Amino acid sequence: MKKKFTLAEIAEFLGLSYKGENITITGLNTLDEATNSELSFLANPKYINKISSTHAGALIIREDQAENIKNAILCDNPYFAFARCMGLFQEKEGFFEGISEFASIHPSAVIGENCTIYPFVTIGANTKIGNNCTLFSGVYIGENCLIGENCTLTPNCVLMSYTELGNNCYLQPGVVLGGEGYGFVRTDFGIQKIPQIGHVLIEDNVEIGANTTIDRAALSKTHIRKSTCIDNLVQIGHNVQIGEECFIISQVGIAGSTKVGNKTTLAGQVGISGHLNIGNNVTIGPQAGVIKDIEDNKVVSGSPTMDYSTYMRNASLSAKIPDLFKRVSALEKKLMQFEEKN
Amino acid sequence: MKKKFTLAEIAEFLGLSYKGENITITGLNTLDEATNSELSFLANPKYINKISSTHAGALIIREDQAENIKNAILCDNPYFAFARCMGLFQEKEGFFEGISEFASIHPSAVIGENCTIYPFVTIGANTKIGNNCTLFSGVYIGENCLIGENCTLTPNCVLMSYTELGNNCYLQPGVVLGGEGYGFVRTDFGIQKIPQIGHVLIEDNVEIGANTTIDRAALSKTHIRKSTCIDNLVQIGHNVQIGEECFIISQVGIAGSTKVGNKTTLAGQVGISGHLNIGNNVTIGPQAGVIKDIEDNKVVSGSPTMDYSTYMRNASLSAKIPDLFKRVSALEKKLMQFEEKN
Amino acid sequence: MKKKFTLAEIAEFLGLSYKGENITITGLNTLDEATNSELSFLANPKYINKISSTHAGALIIREDQAENIKNAILCDNPYFAFARCMGLFQEKEGFFEGISEFASIHPSAVIGENCTIYPFVTIGANTKIGNNCTLFSGVYIGENCLIGENCTLTPNCVLMSYTELGNNCYLQPGVVLGGEGYGFVRTDFGIQKIPQIGHVLIEDNVEIGANTTIDRAALSKTHIRKSTCIDNLVQIGHNVQIGEECFIISQVGIAGSTKVGNKTTLAGQVGISGHLNIGNNVTIGPQAGVIKDIEDNKVVSGSPTMDYSTYMRNASLSAKIPDLFKRVSALEKKLMQFEEKN
Repeated sequence: MKKKFTLAEIAEFLGLSYKGENITITGLNTLDEATNSELSFLANPKYINKISSTHAGALIIREDQAENIKNAILCDNPYFAFARCMGLFQEKEGFFEGISEFASIHPSAVIGENCTIYPFVTIGANTKIGNNCTLFSGVYIGENCLIGENCTLTPNCVLMSYTELGNNCYLQPGVVLGGEGYGFVRTDFGIQKIPQIGHVLIEDNVEIGANTTIDRAALSKTHIRKSTCIDNLVQIGHNVQIGEECFIISQVGIAGSTKVGNKTTLAGQVGISGHLNIGNNVTIGPQAGVIKDIEDNKVVSGSPTMDYSTYMRNASLSAKIPDLFKRVSALEKKLMQFEEKN
Repeated sequence: MKKKFTLAEIAEFLGLSYKGENITITGLNTLDEATNSELSFLANPKYINKISSTHAGALIIREDQAENIKNAILCDNPYFAFARCMGLFQEKEGFFEGISEFASIHPSAVIGENCTIYPFVTIGANTKIGNNCTLFSGVYIGENCLIGENCTLTPNCVLMSYTELGNNCYLQPGVVLGGEGYGFVRTDFGIQKIPQIGHVLIEDNVEIGANTTIDRAALSKTHIRKSTCIDNLVQIGHNVQIGEECFIISQVGIAGSTKVGNKTTLAGQVGISGHLNIGNNVTIGPQAGVIKDIEDNKVVSGSPTMDYSTYMRNASLSAKIPDLFKRVSALEKKLMQFEEKN
Repeated sequence: MKKKFTLAEIAEFLGLSYKGENITITGLNTLDEATNSELSFLANPKYINKISSTHAGALIIREDQAENIKNAILCDNPYFAFARCMGLFQEKEGFFEGISEFASIHPSAVIGENCTIYPFVTIGANTKIGNNCTLFSGVYIGENCLIGENCTLTPNCVLMSYTELGNNCYLQPGVVLGGEGYGFVRTDFGIQKIPQIGHVLIEDNVEIGANTTIDRAALSKTHIRKSTCIDNLVQIGHNVQIGEECFIISQVGIAGSTKVGNKTTLAGQVGISGHLNIGNNVTIGPQAGVIKDIEDNKVVSGSPTMDYSTYMRNASLSAKIPDLFKRVSALEKKLMQFEEKN
């Protein structure tokens, strides 16, 4: 059953007051889609016209915009208050408690207190799992892994041997950590495989999106620092180092041994070559292709990358390039005529 | 054992007549690769020369092209007839029937009639599954999900809580539906996670490719409308809406809250930014990067996108851009000489 | 427990001599990160300055550079010797032996000698698996598959029916082989699905990266030839043919029926359209978009692709394109002034 709260309970949770009727709120929704038992919000003044047409049962809204609203929670920052309500209405994912008898746990593995282990989970030898972790069905954790506290590994995540995960990490379904790095070399005797004997280290509070892959290092470690948020279908190569609080959007690929600083944002489908240094507070636009180092605080786009302002001017000009060729041809013709005359 | 039919049986299935010997056909193949017990076809007149060299035991062919063919099924539209034969020869995937005792099904889940549930499947609380569904090994369906009739979920597909799937949907292996949307905001107090309390709704007759990920909405739903066909390794962000009968080719990424109309085609590796409106009957070329709305019936390419005709002219000109720089330099030089003379 | 060797044992393994103290080596690492019980190496003369600051307990190094090194293994090719040491220190992945009673193996399946089958593995009817194979947890192998000897399928790999795998293949986690090819056609009666009745054939010594997908053919086979190395999150469409000893880097997408020759390298995020011929010894740069055939031995980049040298000139010029527009406008203005004067 979905959660329900009265408007008064929600206001109390937020430490705010409400006006109107103390109706029961069965969910949260946008102004367009909310029903008369749902709570919505107005943050962006662009949408103020939607107030008159919304069917929402109540709104979180600034007091000076609330005059004609019947049921409302009043506050200065409706977006922030609404986001807190989303946490209130959120249900914990999952339906199972305890440790399933259909999980396969090696006798030498150490499982912390209050862990939830679904059926069909495999945990390898000498692996240690901290308190309050949840491992959903189909999770495989190899031998000699170290998992911190309060981690959630959703269905079918795979951690190969020696992977280390900090506290409070959340892995969406199908994440693969510690698969072998791509270490192949062409030689006169055919392709030689370079054994990958390093591992993956993920620090605290890291979130990793569905079906993302992070390879183990050739030597030492592939390293994701704390509070970095990685989206779905991202590829991170062996020995890559990612700083703290980075945003790595879906389908990004980062080749081996590249270092990314702190608070850097990589937009969707960015590709970064190997052995590069990307600074702190850098923003790289969608589909960009990075083939050289990028200094701190830069905003770049394009493949290969250039300053964002140059990229945008180029983008707006690119539709005019066929015309530019014509203009140059016309100039050449005219100049030739001049030459013939003189 | 692979299926076998006589040429007469195949002709009867198609409602067509055949000529030649009633041989046994053990499979279907191309003109190049077919053996003397296989059936092939000629649709594209470009390949008519292959008729003399093919080893195919029989052909589906137009009557006016069949003069020198020994064994043939005659028809006006060989491509269409051959595609129907592919359905005839196709074997149903899988080898198991019934509900495995090694599946983990919550007591409150409701399973329809004639369902096949392989070992190592997990089905959560309050989930309802329609009649005639097949769930292969390693499938995880969370709590409060709703699955229609005649759906096939191949191995290791994951549906997180509250996901809804219509009738006749087919999910290739490793599909993830309902993982959390990417909702993170940088604040002065560090990164805040926006809880994702919406869900994923997939309508009837949708097909989804291997390892594709479709995130749950922040609020309300991420919505894929009926008969849309999604290829492998596609990423669809939270609150995206896709229309009916769209083709979304592999490795496409669509950022949050973007709407795509009906019968639109997104070629491989296309990236679309968030909060955009893409119209009906639009075609977007491979690797295109979409950063603004696109009207109905447009054909666009490039990153950022432009009209297809402009894109193709640019593409053919781009190899001549270094030369254009030289031509402009030459013009500048000549003009300077003129200026000096005059 | 991680492996340990004395310096003498390592030298003997390499067939080389050592100098200094016969210390115990507990691992391998880079010059920067090695501790005093770890072995490192100097191959690239660029790093010779690091010799004085490294904490490595011993080095593999050329004799003429080893004068001030206390503990060293001396050789002419330190990189090659070090790579061999990586094989020495590598631990076999996994912790389980034998055939788990929690695996689901069809009675008609044939399993070779010395195979390791983890819990929660599914093996279908009439499938044959060669000697010395290892199938990790969550692996699904459908019916009528043929797996060679010495293959490793790491967790959650999926092989749909009729997939054939040669000897010595290594599949990273989450690989999907034999999902249905994308065969959909728009007709006046709605979308028609073309049944995909071919299969996937992978030859000997092929390695496939995590969450990569290779689709079954419409007819005949999708074919990966021997010793080709495929990285993570790659998409290979139906009826694609890949030659021997190719390198296919992560997030590459290859559309249906395209043929790639031998010893060709596709860099990260390359996209290749369908029905093309890519030659032998071709190198295609990162993020390139291929829409026409490429001859043997070419090096290309860009989307659409052009010769690498042209691409690099364009790339360096692209930041100057806004300036080029200004220069052409200036020329036009000057020429107009000339015309007015004359």
